[in-house]
Amino acid sequence: MVSSLDVAKLAGVSQATVSRVLNNSPKVTEKTKKKIYAAIDELGYYPNLIARSLVTNENRTIALISGAINNDFYVETTESIVKKANELGYSVIVYFAEENQPINIFDSIKGSNVSGILLSSIFLEDSLLGELEKSGIPYIFFNRRPTKGGNYVVLDNKKASYLNAKHLIELGHTRIAYISNEFSNISTLYERKLGFDKAMRKYHLDNEKYTRVIDGTEENLKRTIDELIHLKIPPTSIICTTDHMAMISMDYLISKGIQIPEDISLTGFDNNKITAHQAIQLTTVSHNEKYNIGRIAAENLFEMIENPTKENGNNIQIVLEPKLFKRSTTGKGK
Amino acid sequence: MVSSLDVAKLAGVSQATVSRVLNNSPKVTEKTKKKIYAAIDELGYYPNLIARSLVTNENRTIALISGAINNDFYVETTESIVKKANELGYSVIVYFAEENQPINIFDSIKGSNVSGILLSSIFLEDSLLGELEKSGIPYIFFNRRPTKGGNYVVLDNKKASYLNAKHLIELGHTRIAYISNEFSNISTLYERKLGFDKAMRKYHLDNEKYTRVIDGTEENLKRTIDELIHLKIPPTSIICTTDHMAMISMDYLISKGIQIPEDISLTGFDNNKITAHQAIQLTTVSHNEKYNIGRIAAENLFEMIENPTKENGNNIQIVLEPKLFKRSTTGKGK
Repeated sequence: MVSSLDVAKLAGVSQATVSRVLNNSPKVTEKTKKKIYAAIDELGYYPNLIARSLVTNENRTIALISGAINNDFYVETTESIVKKANELGYSVIVYFAEENQPINIFDSIKGSNVSGILLSSIFLEDSLLGELEKSGIPYIFFNRRPTKGGNYVVLDNKKASYLNAKHLIELGHTRIAYISNEFSNISTLYERKLGFDKAMRKYHLDNEKYTRVIDGTEENLKRTIDELIHLKIPPTSIICTTDHMAMISMDYLISKGIQIPEDISLTGFDNNKITAHQAIQLTTVSHNEKYNIGRIAAENLFEMIENPTKENGNNIQIVLEPKLFKRSTTGKGK
Repeated sequence: MVSSLDVAKLAGVSQATVSRVLNNSPKVTEKTKKKIYAAIDELGYYPNLIARSLVTNENRTIALISGAINNDFYVETTESIVKKANELGYSVIVYFAEENQPINIFDSIKGSNVSGILLSSIFLEDSLLGELEKSGIPYIFFNRRPTKGGNYVVLDNKKASYLNAKHLIELGHTRIAYISNEFSNISTLYERKLGFDKAMRKYHLDNEKYTRVIDGTEENLKRTIDELIHLKIPPTSIICTTDHMAMISMDYLISKGIQIPEDISLTGFDNNKITAHQAIQLTTVSHNEKYNIGRIAAENLFEMIENPTKENGNNIQIVLEPKLFKRSTTGKGK
C-alpha cells in the first residue's frame, strides 16, 4: 500500500507538506505542489478511502433515499447525513426519489450490498415496508412513517400543525387558508391536516372554503395563491404545509405588491435554514433538537449497524416534540 | 416478468387504475388502493426500473461527483442532472465530494460499472484527470476545469468577474472588497480573481487592502465581513465569489443593522434561484443559457455515451458567455 510517506519521499518533502497540499493549504509553493502531484500520479496514491477499506476490510457504505432535492428540507437532511456518515468513516450513495416512485430505487439498492438504508420516501400504505423487513438490511425512515410498524424518526406533525394554526388564531385570524400537497398517502401531510382540522374544531372555525390541495408544482401553487387573494372575502393568513411552499408563496405575494404580514400573514413547516435569514424571517414550526431529523435518523442507523441487537433492530420509533418559531411573517388578524 | 396488467387482474381493477395509484392520484378510493397494494405485494411487482433494465439489458447508471451540497449552486445542478438523466431512463448515483478530497470518491466509482461520470470537483493540477482518461469511461467536468485538456462546461469566469467589478465601478464605487475562498488550485476561483484584478488595473484602482481569502467556513466569512466594516476607511461594496457566500454576508450585514445597498453594495456569482426571490434580489453574474451548467454537461455526456465517436470523446470544451443580473443589492458608490 502506497502511503503519504512514500509520496513525501519521492517528492523530497515532509509528510506534513504532502498533507497540506492534499488539504489545499495556501502555504505551499506552486513548485512544491507540482512535485507532490507528480509523485502522487507516479505512485498511484489515494488518501483515506483505500487506507480505510484496507484497515476495516469491508465496504462501509449506506444508501440514502431522499425526497426531492428542490425542497431545502431534503438538502439539509442530506447534508447532515453525509457529514455524520463521513465522520464515522462511511460513504453515502444518495438517491433522490422521484415523487411517488420510491420503490423503483430500492430494487437497485438491494444488489449493491450496503450496510444500511435511510429513507424519507414511504407511503402510509406501501409494499416497501415489507420488502425492507424481508431484506434484513438495517433501515430507518425519517420525516415520514408507514401506517403501522417500521423504524422511524418523525416530528409530531399533528401537534405541530395544531400549534401553527393556534398561533394565527391567537393573533386574531379567522380566515386561514391551508395549502397542502395531496396528503392521503403521506404521513407527514396527513397528520398536518389532522392537526389543522383539530384546531379549527377547537376554536369553532370552518375553513373548508380556504383549504386547497395542490399537485406539487410551483405553477399550481402560484395559481392557487392568486385564486385565494382574489376571493370576494379573501383569507387574512396562509398556512403552507412546507417551508419550500411558503418561500414560493412569499415570492409570489411580494411580486403582486402584497405586504407580509400587513396584508396577509404566512407560515410554513420545517424551519429550513433560509427561513431564519434576516431578509426572509418566516414563521414556521419544527422541533427543537440540536440536529435535524436526518442526522438523528443517521445516528440511530449507525447504532443499529455497529451494535446489532434484537432490541434496537425493530423498535426505533422516535416522535419529536414540535416548536413554533415566531418570526416576522405573522401579524395581527383583521 | 410481472406487469401492471397482472396487478390489475389480481386486484380486479383496470390497468389505468393501477397506474393512477402508482402516481398517487387522489381520484382512487382507499379501498381500491388497498386492493392494489395487496396485489403489488403478492406479485412482487416493481414498476419502470426493472422493466427498463430487462428491455435494454444493461445497467444505465451515471455517477455524479458534486461539490458540497450546502452550496445552492450544486443543489440546482444536481437537481437538473438527475431530472435530465431520468428523462432518458438513466439512474444517477450522487456523491457529494468533501471539499478538497475528490479523488477518494472516484476510486470507489471505478468498480461500480457506470456508463459515465459528471464531476464538478477537479483541481487545476490534479492526478484525477489522468485517471479519468485512462479509465475510458465517458466523463465531463462542469463548473471547474483542469489547467489543460479534459472535457468540460464552464462559465467564462474571468470575463464574468470583470463584469461584476465593472458594474460596481460604473456605479461610482472605488473601495471594493473582494472575498474569495482559496483560489490557487481551483479554476473557477482563480479565473474570477484574474478578472477582478484586470478590472482594477483597467480602472487604475488598487484594492489589495480590501481583498480577503477565507477558509470556506461560515464563521470565517462572518469574521471577515465584520473586520471589513470596522476598518477606518471601510469598503463601500463587497464582491463575494459565490452567491452562497453573498447570502451569508447579506444575512450578517442586515443583522448588524447595515442597509443594502444604502450603506454597502453586495454582489455574488452563479445566479442561484434564491437570488431572484423578491425578498432577496441579489445582483449576481452567471450565463444566459436556458438550462444550468450541470444540465448542459449532462446533455453532452449522454451524447458521448449514446453516440460514441472519436470526435465527441475528447473535445467537449464549452465556455459560456457571462451575463450580469442587476438587482437591488447594488446602488451608487459614495
